[in-house]
Amino acid sequence: MKDYAKLSIEEHRKNKGKLEIISKFPLNNRDELSIAYTPGVAAPCLLIVKDVREALNLTSMKSTVAVITDGSSVLGLGNIGPVAALPVMEGKCALFKRFANLDAVPIVLGTQDTEEIISAIKAIAPTFGGINLEDISAPRCFEIEERLKKELEIPVMHDDQHGTAIVVLAGLINALKVTGKKKENVKVVVNGAGAAGIAITKLVHLYGFIDIIMCDSKGIIHKDRDDLTKEKIEILKITNSDNKNGNLSEAVVGADIFIGVSKGNVINSDDVKRMREGAIIFAMANPTPEITPEEAQSGGASIFATGRSDLPNQVNNSLVFPGIFRGAIDARVSKITDQMKLASAEALSNLVKNPNPEKIIPGPFDEGVMESVAKAVMDASEK
Amino acid sequence: MKDYAKLSIEEHRKNKGKLEIISKFPLNNRDELSIAYTPGVAAPCLLIVKDVREALNLTSMKSTVAVITDGSSVLGLGNIGPVAALPVMEGKCALFKRFANLDAVPIVLGTQDTEEIISAIKAIAPTFGGINLEDISAPRCFEIEERLKKELEIPVMHDDQHGTAIVVLAGLINALKVTGKKKENVKVVVNGAGAAGIAITKLVHLYGFIDIIMCDSKGIIHKDRDDLTKEKIEILKITNSDNKNGNLSEAVVGADIFIGVSKGNVINSDDVKRMREGAIIFAMANPTPEITPEEAQSGGASIFATGRSDLPNQVNNSLVFPGIFRGAIDARVSKITDQMKLASAEALSNLVKNPNPEKIIPGPFDEGVMESVAKAVMDASEK
Repeated sequence: MKDYAKLSIEEHRKNKGKLEIISKFPLNNRDELSIAYTPGVAAPCLLIVKDVREALNLTSMKSTVAVITDGSSVLGLGNIGPVAALPVMEGKCALFKRFANLDAVPIVLGTQDTEEIISAIKAIAPTFGGINLEDISAPRCFEIEERLKKELEIPVMHDDQHGTAIVVLAGLINALKVTGKKKENVKVVVNGAGAAGIAITKLVHLYGFIDIIMCDSKGIIHKDRDDLTKEKIEILKITNSDNKNGNLSEAVVGADIFIGVSKGNVINSDDVKRMREGAIIFAMANPTPEITPEEAQSGGASIFATGRSDLPNQVNNSLVFPGIFRGAIDARVSKITDQMKLASAEALSNLVKNPNPEKIIPGPFDEGVMESVAKAVMDASEK
Repeated sequence: MKDYAKLSIEEHRKNKGKLEIISKFPLNNRDELSIAYTPGVAAPCLLIVKDVREALNLTSMKSTVAVITDGSSVLGLGNIGPVAALPVMEGKCALFKRFANLDAVPIVLGTQDTEEIISAIKAIAPTFGGINLEDISAPRCFEIEERLKKELEIPVMHDDQHGTAIVVLAGLINALKVTGKKKENVKVVVNGAGAAGIAITKLVHLYGFIDIIMCDSKGIIHKDRDDLTKEKIEILKITNSDNKNGNLSEAVVGADIFIGVSKGNVINSDDVKRMREGAIIFAMANPTPEITPEEAQSGGASIFATGRSDLPNQVNNSLVFPGIFRGAIDARVSKITDQMKLASAEALSNLVKNPNPEKIIPGPFDEGVMESVAKAVMDASEK
């Protein structure tokens, strides 16, 4: 693998960050100034005063998405704070432009207080056509997203939850096709009960998976534990109906599917051997997956996917968020619904014409990825 | 004059707003994705964790300025709210890029509550290298700016106050040269006691003008009035030492300089005739000045300046704000000081090699405008 760390530092230093904000209007003489700025600019302002919807036609608002973090849970790096999170947010904004032609603004917040975050985002919201919450730690991320969805009239999505859940479901749909398994019959273990794990569990349940067990760092989440957060208690309504307990290795015995959104090297080839024939492993911890490709292979896994760009089957939410926001904004919906998420996952899985162990999910540069997801969102909005 | 209103609406509609946010990094294959985003992006993040100053080298933060309004006092349009203010904010951002190569983000706030505005701006501040407050009505603008200057470590400037004050002072310096008057001897009347009027009065006083009278919509501000805001009471310390009273027409009798930052057609040629020989008129209300060029001329004014781009001597803060922020950011100062403002005004006035009644102030496209102001700020920061 190339030394991406070194290359990335070099490029960031050379360019001083990744984003640039340019004018679509020429500004080379007094006439052009008078059109873009005073006195001409008063006229579009007055049209918006008369009808606020004109802002969608006369400003960049509609195509502008805020990518907002408090820096509390960035990549696999943890709580590195807002300023150190900026390179990631700028990267996400660059991807929004590249894949969906949306103009995305990174916003990093100098507070990790739930109420202050909600107030600040509500205050700046009239600027934007959509809000992508990013890398905010659980459990605060749940309340922040929930409240903003309720209180704002523009699409709000915490990508670590729903972007990840959608792309995982897309991959699972094809993994089932490849292995000939059925969602109604398979046993799923989700390891990691943070933002991604909770959202994945909810979405795959909604899609029709029935037997799901969730683990956190203490092992299987079951109803006799006294250390569960509100969200983990809630998730018991749709998981672990037999109230099993035990550690992760015990959880995966007889499982068909392992989904890791936790940390590196938590299972090994022996664990995989104890899974059912045709084991499906999504080991998405970054940069070190929950199990190496070699261990998964020697354990006999049929499908192996990770979050890494240097391995086959990269399950990455960059396949999802550009199309989700493009579709939601173009359809002018105020909420991203569960139906839109399910439709996006199906659309994404359908893009892979011949699913096989090496290809269960489109690559980021495959044709039609953003468009398919956007169309799925728009179609679902009309139902 | 061209129909800028019509042209502006057409251009805004065609382009759907004025700004676009682009990536400086290419994103055309997996390698480039891995450098701009995961996994490579973790490396610059970690450098910033170690030393937060690295954000200046590795992100776009340093060159990024927020242009923030609550829409409470936009152009001459008044309190049109945040969304209708967007075309103006986008215009200002376009000018920041054009004249200072700064990447400016429009932020419009869905609140006009002083404390909520301060909290929201403090929350998002770690994103930016500087904050340009814009079109926030008096008297809230004074407290908002004051508090943010105290509580943030990046330059904060309310441009309606200080940008305007600096460009007015620059024009006055050359107007004095042209008319052979001295700042110590002239009598100044400032009409309009909002953000701009208060800031102009303070800055010209600081520069050495002694005899200043300020008027608001009720006439001369004097100490026997019982309807004065905190700021107007404060301004009496440096104005109207003889405690004159009367209306605006009475105030301008015998004055050398009239500075209007109020509304159209408040004085006429008779008023100008009652001023001293060599009267200097800055009639800056937009779009209709305090007095027409014809009336000013027939009253015998020696110097006539407005805020309009279609007349000579356009006194416009777009001459100032790009260089102020460029200089403050390049010098890495945390505050824009009075010394920087005075130095900027002098630098701007010095750019006009042969001041004359038709040219007391540079034009927006004159060479060296931004650079001279930026240099003045940087030089003043070292003193």
